[in-house]
Amino acid sequence: MKYAVKIEVSLKPGHSNPEGETTARLLVELGFSVEAVEVSKVYKVVLEASSMVEAEQKAQEMSSRLLVNPTKDDYTISVAERK
Amino acid sequence: MKYAVKIEVSLKPGHSNPEGETTARLLVELGFSVEAVEVSKVYKVVLEASSMVEAEQKAQEMSSRLLVNPTKDDYTISVAERK
Repeated sequence: MKYAVKIEVSLKPGHSNPEGETTARLLVELGFSVEAVEVSKVYKVVLEASSMVEAEQKAQEMSSRLLVNPTKDDYTISVAERK
Repeated sequence: MKYAVKIEVSLKPGHSNPEGETTARLLVELGFSVEAVEVSKVYKVVLEASSMVEAEQKAQEMSSRLLVNPTKDDYTISVAERK
């Protein structure tokens, strides 16, 4: 069965966030009352698995082997059956 | 009042998606049964506004003036009161 897993990768609090800081500065220069910007990345992966539990396990393994840097990143995983 | 707006920017269908294609290829090389990967970016912006409607309007304006390329990007906006 096919599943769509969504892996959202964000910076851990306290880690340098140059893209967010630059974006915040640009928005302020454009006149917006912005206090802070955080930037995260979302991977939507369509994969083959025998169950939702297996799809979630595969997403965990993809995260730790490729998509996430455990030193600086937090991440969340959600799984849905592929329509 | 402070609001947290979330702007998710993804590529329109049919547009070249080199980061997703590279990620998919690497995951397949690692042994995963992956069909496709889409990569999108999420901006979480904390801003000052007088109402939720105004916060959403500001997020629309930020998107069109800085964060989104209308030729190739789709985007969604959600707004929450800042805890």
